[in-house]
Amino acid sequence: MISAGIDVGSTATKAVIFDGRIRSSAVMPTGWNPKEAGRTVFLEALSKAGLQEQDVDAVVGTGYGRVSLAFIHKKVTEITCHAKGAKFLFPQTRTVIDIGGQDSKVIAVAEDGGVADFIMNDKCAAGTGRFLQVMTGILDITLEELGQMAAAGKPVSINSMCTVFAESEIIGLLAQEVPKEAIASGVVQTIANKIISLASRVPCQEEITFSGGVANNPEICASLSSAFGAKFNIPRQPQIVGALGAAIVGFEKFQ
Amino acid sequence: MISAGIDVGSTATKAVIFDGRIRSSAVMPTGWNPKEAGRTVFLEALSKAGLQEQDVDAVVGTGYGRVSLAFIHKKVTEITCHAKGAKFLFPQTRTVIDIGGQDSKVIAVAEDGGVADFIMNDKCAAGTGRFLQVMTGILDITLEELGQMAAAGKPVSINSMCTVFAESEIIGLLAQEVPKEAIASGVVQTIANKIISLASRVPCQEEITFSGGVANNPEICASLSSAFGAKFNIPRQPQIVGALGAAIVGFEKFQ
Ligand code: SF4
Repeated sequence: MISAGIDVGSTATKAVIFDGRIRSSAVMPTGWNPKEAGRTVFLEALSKAGLQEQDVDAVVGTGYGRVSLAFIHKKVTEITCHAKGAKFLFPQTRTVIDIGGQDSKVIAVAEDGGVADFIMNDKCAAGTGRFLQVMTGILDITLEELGQMAAAGKPVSINSMCTVFAESEIIGLLAQEVPKEAIASGVVQTIANKIISLASRVPCQEEITFSGGVANNPEICASLSSAFGAKFNIPRQPQIVGALGAAIVGFEKFQ
Repeated sequence: MISAGIDVGSTATKAVIFDGRIRSSAVMPTGWNPKEAGRTVFLEALSKAGLQEQDVDAVVGTGYGRVSLAFIHKKVTEITCHAKGAKFLFPQTRTVIDIGGQDSKVIAVAEDGGVADFIMNDKCAAGTGRFLQVMTGILDITLEELGQMAAAGKPVSINSMCTVFAESEIIGLLAQEVPKEAIASGVVQTIANKIISLASRVPCQEEITFSGGVANNPEICASLSSAFGAKFNIPRQPQIVGALGAAIVGFEKFQ
């Protein structure tokens, strides 16, 4: 039995080939064409696993762009998939925090791996990867540098949670020659505050697994984890948790 | 009896000299120094009225930057001042819609000119002048051109209310060569939707007076008014309504 999960997110599209464990995975930018991205990333994951399309028994799609995938057998919400994927990687997971390119979610995971409750923000850029992208743009640094600088600086307080207003504040801070380290640290604090405020709306128990592209950055993980006052499980490939969950749904369903 | 009102907003600072009617007014950008802006605009309004500081019996401050004004006699919230100012200009006013540079508010005005209820947004750039500023920036047009184009175009639908996500959508629409008129029209529709959603949270009766810098643009006024399905009173100088209200508070109080 071999299954595939494809997670077409607003920023990145990911695929996982699964046979009880992760056989292969692939990640690429979604771009303007989610349909094409879904197809391409699936074929790439297949080729990495040394498989053909007909070797796969079940293909499950998730993410906002799953509707555009014609060749899949089943569509599942990303909430279910993130819970499943996180639980597979860290069996004690009771909460998933996912910061994606254009959304963020906090999922309370039941003991059986189902979704007990969740909250999702995809309406407001604050608290998403997009916020960090805008901030690194003004600071003219990479996300990696942001994390490193944030770890080195004492956070300056940024009053606005709104990405647009925070951007203006930071331009003001730069004009006042506030060190970039302090600003970077403030930026990470701001996203942590937004995620904490999101998380306050669902019962949030340990263990907490942190997924999504932002979790690739160790310093941001550390800051978020200390802001939460809890240790985070960080997957080796935090971006593929949803695609993994989709593949697991297929594996279980069509077995 | 002569009074002065000074409204230190996040974007513009305004002053009005009042003696039972508007003697003079002045408007300037707030910039980084609200204290200095407040002082300068006050002196400018005085000079336009041919008056000295000692000729003024009462100086009342309003707007977010009122706290920085040391020389004023009284501080009053901008909500009270907008209600007062709008009621003075249009005595039948029962609702004030104010779209400022970085906030927007809807005020239900009691028959006696007091504040019956209000809702204010200063946390989110959507539905504020800032949204329009970002959008004209991407479209590379002035606010005036935006209004004119919007009036000429059939609105394309913009899905995100969030300024940041709407910005990306518009970049996508431009890449697809959607006409700028359609986009401009969609932008005005988006801000109208946000203001309508804000206004739905207070009892909103006619007559409606529209204040704030955005009301300087006749086409945006027309679009908003038709989206509301109501005629708007547009002051000749929509930016000074708050400063006028502050001056009236001073006039009444210290009379
Ligand atoms: S608060 Fe800012 S980032 Fe959030 S929806 Fe409003 S404009 Fe967008």
